[in-house]
Amino acid sequence: MSQYGSAVEYSLHCLLYLAGTGAGSDATTARSVRDIAEFQKLSTDYVAKLFTRMEKAGLVTSIEGLRGGFCLARAAEEISVLDVVDAIEGQKPLFACREVRANCILFDETTPAWSGRGVCGIHAVMLQADRAMRASLAQSNLAQLASHVAQVVPRAHQKAARNWFEERGAARGRGARNRG
Amino acid sequence: MSQYGSAVEYSLHCLLYLAGTGAGSDATTARSVRDIAEFQKLSTDYVAKLFTRMEKAGLVTSIEGLRGGFCLARAAEEISVLDVVDAIEGQKPLFACREVRANCILFDETTPAWSGRGVCGIHAVMLQADRAMRASLAQSNLAQLASHVAQVVPRAHQKAARNWFEERGAARGRGARNRG
Repeated sequence: MSQYGSAVEYSLHCLLYLAGTGAGSDATTARSVRDIAEFQKLSTDYVAKLFTRMEKAGLVTSIEGLRGGFCLARAAEEISVLDVVDAIEGQKPLFACREVRANCILFDETTPAWSGRGVCGIHAVMLQADRAMRASLAQSNLAQLASHVAQVVPRAHQKAARNWFEERGAARGRGARNRG
Repeated sequence: MSQYGSAVEYSLHCLLYLAGTGAGSDATTARSVRDIAEFQKLSTDYVAKLFTRMEKAGLVTSIEGLRGGFCLARAAEEISVLDVVDAIEGQKPLFACREVRANCILFDETTPAWSGRGVCGIHAVMLQADRAMRASLAQSNLAQLASHVAQVVPRAHQKAARNWFEERGAARGRGARNRG
């Protein structure tokens, strides 16, 4: 098992569909969880769970109504990859220290106090690597990822994707009026 | 699940019992897997598996004979924490990219070539964090860990531990002579 699995990967991909939104966005730029899921051929329930975590972490905010959905809670520049990783994985440590140092055949039934004093040297090295990893993830943000996507994805596909989302939103609006 | 679990932690602790050994060591400084396991209240089979991986990776070397066992294959300064992590975990990536970018409702049955070109932007950010983490682990070595242990563990306990290992080795020698 790697440290970060598909949930982080899917969440970042999902957020990229919201990268044009941000604080102050209105319903025309919000994206529904169902549309984001269907566009990527994922289950709506799964994507809904990811958005629940990201909403709790204050990364996305929901907009009510037929044309509603989610948009970013702040500018894409202010959402780091680390923010997303922590929202989804919950500040998972790189290394789970089991305090192995307390197990020694020479100790009596009670482990001496000195054996648990301070941070274990091995754990300290791992915590340092954890900080290096987190610092690296904190340096990248959603706006940079979106800019990379805009460079590598052909313009025609970017336009087709926007049209697909807009058409889906508009269809929901029409459906409601026809039923009304 | 964290990236690194108990196998890495136990392996580093095990190696600390060999920290005084190194290339050119003889049988008087080698430590047997059974003794290392028992000293830490671990199963011999489990510790043997860790040593098999570390021997394959060239970190430890075995010495034959009754007073034999394992010693470090090179100086403790030249065995980094990253070496141990890789020996045990096999260069496990931080992030398992599933090429999510290939899933799009707008693609026909064949995914267009551009969607898989270059490294996915998200994967690239994760690879960068992976490199930062590995660079940090490469900076710490076994000699530093051993020096930390020598500082925090009371001298009386360090001496008792050495005596315990030496007595065990000597007892095996005596047992063999008595049986001979």
